[in-house]
Amino acid sequence: MAASVSLSSGKVPNSEVQQEVKLLNGVYDNYGGVVVQMTEPMDSKLFASLLQSSLSHWKQEGKKGVWIKLPIGLVDLVEVAVKEGFWYHHAEPTYLMLIYWIPGGAHTLPANASHRVGIGAFVMNQKREVLVVQENSGRFRGKGIWKFPTGVVDQGEDICEAAVREVKEETSIDAEFVEVLAFRQSHQSFFEKSDLFFVCMLRPLSFNIQKQENEIEAAQWMPLEEYMVQPFVQKEGLLKYMIDICLAKIEGSYSGFSPVPTTSIFSDQKHYLYLNAADLKHSNI
Amino acid sequence: MAASVSLSSGKVPNSEVQQEVKLLNGVYDNYGGVVVQMTEPMDSKLFASLLQSSLSHWKQEGKKGVWIKLPIGLVDLVEVAVKEGFWYHHAEPTYLMLIYWIPGGAHTLPANASHRVGIGAFVMNQKREVLVVQENSGRFRGKGIWKFPTGVVDQGEDICEAAVREVKEETSIDAEFVEVLAFRQSHQSFFEKSDLFFVCMLRPLSFNIQKQENEIEAAQWMPLEEYMVQPFVQKEGLLKYMIDICLAKIEGSYSGFSPVPTTSIFSDQKHYLYLNAADLKHSNI
Repeated sequence: MAASVSLSSGKVPNSEVQQEVKLLNGVYDNYGGVVVQMTEPMDSKLFASLLQSSLSHWKQEGKKGVWIKLPIGLVDLVEVAVKEGFWYHHAEPTYLMLIYWIPGGAHTLPANASHRVGIGAFVMNQKREVLVVQENSGRFRGKGIWKFPTGVVDQGEDICEAAVREVKEETSIDAEFVEVLAFRQSHQSFFEKSDLFFVCMLRPLSFNIQKQENEIEAAQWMPLEEYMVQPFVQKEGLLKYMIDICLAKIEGSYSGFSPVPTTSIFSDQKHYLYLNAADLKHSNI
Repeated sequence: MAASVSLSSGKVPNSEVQQEVKLLNGVYDNYGGVVVQMTEPMDSKLFASLLQSSLSHWKQEGKKGVWIKLPIGLVDLVEVAVKEGFWYHHAEPTYLMLIYWIPGGAHTLPANASHRVGIGAFVMNQKREVLVVQENSGRFRGKGIWKFPTGVVDQGEDICEAAVREVKEETSIDAEFVEVLAFRQSHQSFFEKSDLFFVCMLRPLSFNIQKQENEIEAAQWMPLEEYMVQPFVQKEGLLKYMIDICLAKIEGSYSGFSPVPTTSIFSDQKHYLYLNAADLKHSNI
């Protein structure tokens, strides 16, 4: 995608004598779309006029979706784009992405990100004690409930990294990632968005707890049985199952999904594939 | 959260003689925040003035985060909010959510949704043939590559439902969900967003293929060995692993995660927990 926008000239073939008109600088994508990334301020009337002539030009070229990325500093152009028929696709702190569908009718543009991703960490020492915390904000504040460390996976962060980071941040315990034991998908968890919550098993590498000052009220190693009998743990669907899974894991009869680095021919980045490595190892293929 | 916004009166205690001022109607959340949902048009100067007095009031009350939800019809108010120091949190086609952090400095507000979720479907019949398609748009267009049906999980849709829906849409084959065989997390896959891709196994319930007109170039039942030897499948990291997993699955030596409905004391909705049900069944707990 282009990193800047500038005016460009386009041949508009809708008159017998072709005339040069100024257009917004759009980059064509692989899906018949045009991506415009605005970077410099522009008079809103000029922007409106360029947008109209550009849409007309792209329509003649058979283009379908038009994307306009407006940095928050160009907030005065948002209303112009909406008045031309654009609507919101997604927003991040520093920009707003607007879209327009030239063919009209139902569009086939990709949807916005739909899920937030969280982790919970099952960390047990040799004495069959689990690492638990009490939170001092949110729904668990002041309830006296001991729970596994949990947290949100940052944008661009791997699930296995996030689990290690959250345990370290909340309790200062160093731990290594073992596997994903289970995951839960829930909806309407944060405004209209859905949530994927991965329960991860980690092996502790250090044992002296130092709780985080801001978010954590208390942290300790707690006998698993003591954690299990908490009324909240007994009542909450996910946690009831997690007890069975953790017990099965302790006796060595449960395999979760462990991360395997893979590469893709479409990307330079390493991706983690999470799979049942134990079963794969024991298969005859 | 309130479904509407109206003017409300608040006591402002910063003068010796308390005076009534008009405030935006905000609902307080559990995290020291205020949520304002605008629904009716408002003069932008009045909005600016109300926003200023409201922020001043909420600051005195010790509030931290302020959320303003602006429907796209009120796009003229976006610039006002940004000029008062608000920035974008997220956007959907019909609205923009703006936030403000009263204490200043680094905020602790929850991040926007970070992941898109996709599925790939491994569907095999009794003749050891897999259901494959060729796509007629995107990166696979015109490449002659046969691939498992894939698709994006809609907002609010369960992974297991999405897999069944995509198979039906692309090929008209009815199938029932068996389990998640593996999943991959990748980053920077769609603008700055990450991607979680779940490879699912489905059992076919019907066998006559009728391909979707718009997105699918061709669809067929293909001998697994023929699918496997495609150069693209041999080269792509995820797919190489998937061959091993599918072969292990066929010989009965691989367990994925299957969905179990659970409930939460925090929600009326049913959630699916995905876990290794086979191992759990065979454990001694």
